Amino acid sequence: MRLAELSGRSGVSTATIKYYLREGLLPPGRQVNATTAEYGEEHLRRLRLVRAMVQVGRLPVATVREVLGHVDDDSLGRTVRLGAALWALPQVPEPDADDDHARAAREEADALLDALGWSNARLLTTISPAYRSLVVAVAALRRLGYDWDAELLAPYARLMHRAAQLDLDHVERQPSEAERVEAAVLGAILVEPMLQALHRLAQEEESARRYGFA
Amino acid sequence: MRLAELSGRSGVSTATIKYYLREGLLPPGRQVNATTAEYGEEHLRRLRLVRAMVQVGRLPVATVREVLGHVDDDSLGRTVRLGAALWALPQVPEPDADDDHARAAREEADALLDALGWSNARLLTTISPAYRSLVVAVAALRRLGYDWDAELLAPYARLMHRAAQLDLDHVERQPSEAERVEAAVLGAILVEPMLQALHRLAQEEESARRYGFA
Repeated sequence: MRLAELSGRSGVSTATIKYYLREGLLPPGRQVNATTAEYGEEHLRRLRLVRAMVQVGRLPVATVREVLGHVDDDSLGRTVRLGAALWALPQVPEPDADDDHARAAREEADALLDALGWSNARLLTTISPAYRSLVVAVAALRRLGYDWDAELLAPYARLMHRAAQLDLDHVERQPSEAERVEAAVLGAILVEPMLQALHRLAQEEESARRYGFA
Repeated sequence: MRLAELSGRSGVSTATIKYYLREGLLPPGRQVNATTAEYGEEHLRRLRLVRAMVQVGRLPVATVREVLGHVDDDSLGRTVRLGAALWALPQVPEPDADDDHARAAREEADALLDALGWSNARLLTTISPAYRSLVVAVAALRRLGYDWDAELLAPYARLMHRAAQLDLDHVERQPSEAERVEAAVLGAILVEPMLQALHRLAQEEESARRYGFA
């Protein structure tokens, strides 16, 4: 398809598409003559992914380029490819203060991983942003006087493990490896707000069931 | 306790405490003489809640005041009191575009609530920000060509319902009604980042289990 059709089908303006091409977020089309290039379904898919990251995920262009670099690097195994892409996404803004609460939070997070038998996640604790986010969240609760520990966290972690299995089942249903990696990145950007919304809706429902509307 | 002790025990500077007192985020202490006031455990708890909203939740002072207004209004029933407080928290930034995708997303969200038997949440769809967030998230997925529907959403919604039950069980273990309402607000601010971190950790674990590290 030509640029105009790519724009029409993707809903992205031709000016924006040209900008993405210049920035390397979209691979060049097949040049058919000096002024015209031909684009394929893979350009449409890639535009969809870039829009999700820019418009919904609000990622800066440099981060989008970094994520796409991992997505496109098929020399990597799938875990690393997915992990590298997910790890380029925005993480907790706060630094992990190294006080007693942070140390206690790390101990509880490690105890949690051991109790659940998450031996793979346990191997990654020194480098995983998700692990760091967990420690920051638990340390924040403990700093406020709430003694969240491995035992309180475990049932939530089991629920999130079920969610992760649903995520990967969905990823695996995609027809090609490129689409699987894209679905994983889109999932990280778009499924999280959906889970958060479902969680709040469920709180409304459960609260009304327990206490009524009065 | 005096201001200095309140500051020491809460970790909040006396200047910030005075600012919160002026802004009405903290009720005045009991005046013992012209220059000295006495503060109690309820001030310590309230400071903890304000810090969670300001520092972790990054809410503006006007929003904190609004949330506290609902928290303190014991003329309201607990569902409304919790709901009013949670609804004052930041919600999805995007407006809900009224296109075909948004309409389809609303239909799927309604079908989901019906399929799950969430009749209370169903009554609140016109006013609930959580419902609007869900529609926005599903519409974003559909706009990108992913046909997320009630059937795909249902297993996630069931998991989040279990999480909401854990939340409310935890809230109900608090010793007083004031602490229960505070725990619900803190939960909304602090439990969500924890759930997100656990979800990402679980994705790492599950991904490594399925595909190895190679």
